[in-house]
Amino acid sequence: MTKSPLDNETFSWPVRVYWEDTDAGGIVFYANYLKFFERSRTEWLRAKGIGQQALKEASGGMFVVSDAQVRFIQSARLDDELLVTTSLLAAGRASMTIHQQALRTSAAGPQLLCDATIRAGWVKADSLKAARIPQNILDTLT
Amino acid sequence: MTKSPLDNETFSWPVRVYWEDTDAGGIVFYANYLKFFERSRTEWLRAKGIGQQALKEASGGMFVVSDAQVRFIQSARLDDELLVTTSLLAAGRASMTIHQQALRTSAAGPQLLCDATIRAGWVKADSLKAARIPQNILDTLT
Amino acid sequence: MTKSPLDNETFSWPVRVYWEDTDAGGIVFYANYLKFFERSRTEWLRAKGIGQQALKEASGGMFVVSDAQVRFIQSARLDDELLVTTSLLAAGRASMTIHQQALRTSAAGPQLLCDATIRAGWVKADSLKAARIPQNILDTLT
Amino acid sequence: MTKSPLDNETFSWPVRVYWEDTDAGGIVFYANYLKFFERSRTEWLRAKGIGQQALKEASGGMFVVSDAQVRFIQSARLDDELLVTTSLLAAGRASMTIHQQALRTSAAGPQLLCDATIRAGWVKADSLKAARIPQNILDTLT
Repeated sequence: MTKSPLDNETFSWPVRVYWEDTDAGGIVFYANYLKFFERSRTEWLRAKGIGQQALKEASGGMFVVSDAQVRFIQSARLDDELLVTTSLLAAGRASMTIHQQALRTSAAGPQLLCDATIRAGWVKADSLKAARIPQNILDTLT
Repeated sequence: MTKSPLDNETFSWPVRVYWEDTDAGGIVFYANYLKFFERSRTEWLRAKGIGQQALKEASGGMFVVSDAQVRFIQSARLDDELLVTTSLLAAGRASMTIHQQALRTSAAGPQLLCDATIRAGWVKADSLKAARIPQNILDTLT
Repeated sequence: MTKSPLDNETFSWPVRVYWEDTDAGGIVFYANYLKFFERSRTEWLRAKGIGQQALKEASGGMFVVSDAQVRFIQSARLDDELLVTTSLLAAGRASMTIHQQALRTSAAGPQLLCDATIRAGWVKADSLKAARIPQNILDTLT
Repeated sequence: MTKSPLDNETFSWPVRVYWEDTDAGGIVFYANYLKFFERSRTEWLRAKGIGQQALKEASGGMFVVSDAQVRFIQSARLDDELLVTTSLLAAGRASMTIHQQALRTSAAGPQLLCDATIRAGWVKADSLKAARIPQNILDTLT
């Protein structure tokens, strides 16, 4: 059973489904959930005081996704209101692993649409070589 | 070890990296590999005589991705030439599982950038309910 | 001189710039301003009580853009906060013309990044044939 | 009357419509024509020996679109085959103006779907300040 994602501890970010997100099947195109997940991760970092543009300029590094396992359970449609969660599963010296879900809010409670485990590694922005996550970032994450 | 994807049996489709595919990190945005994989799957189906628009109109059904496991190994950049492979791993009554890779062509031979296992289920286009893959499609796939 | 877009009468919608919006030039890819404009138009309609998915199901019609004149004045970057305005210039029997701007909020006041005049026509959703805007929609718009 | 775009002198690039390009209206999302136009401009430059990634690295400059006037005449659908043309209207010291069309190939001849006039200025890649187009580029264009 999937643990309820909307407890008080879990970061969530609202996402509205626009025309740009849908395809001719009348539903959100599958790649676009990865956009929604990225937005939620970015806002989760921002809520911790980490702005990625500023971070890249200051540290010369950035997170790059190295692994994504995604289950597409139900389809979102135009005008749907989603909540997209982010919660840290693990943080190591060079990468972090995150659990993310996209849920549709409705009168009957949230419905799980998409569930993902994402691993992002830290790389140097110029060479894209793997590097250690700066200690202050790591301290902030954990 | 990953089996060489470019043997004669494997379907591959060329993809050029344009500005639209890249992000401010100077590399292809991670979600966009799923677009490349979808293009290759579509062309693989088309090579078997299956056009999805015609199929949807004729059968009232379509494939919807239900599961994606993606490893992002190396990053593609603007102007890179990629080959995106599609090969069938399994086909059942209601879904098919596919192995896909994005490789960068270079003088030193192809480099593996992204590797994915994708499962797509057959659904009715109007209700999105799971259904059996039409027999003629299944026969064509396998 | 461009009229200040942020008077009290003008509808505006906040848009945050994410990785997905940027390209390898480090700036928002030019086509993506049209996504931002569409989001603002959609929210402007929603604020008037018009939901496009519901509208399409109820009336069998939808708006389709027929003309866009866009000036790209300054570039937005990752993490920028934008305001995207929508104001009606004219509404006729079969189309409406809208003025839209994307502005970057900053301590020094809003900076104009992108300015557009967009015409959208009403079409039947199945045939895409031009049709009259339903009277109740037209009444709501004007 | 629009001059026939497919004379021998006009550069054209084939574009196939995939799921990613369409929206819930069953047609290509309007912003995506600007992606198609960008691909054709890029291939037009490449055909002249200009690779934009290499150019950016060598010259520190790049083209950025400053103005787009776009008419959306007919809608493309999933699986459509398009030709996207690029022809130079004018080239000055700091910008070039280009005429572009997206046409659907069909048995009855090409149908005009979308027509655009695009102006792109040359900027320094780091500061985004306007600059003169390098003379060798200008010579190649004209």
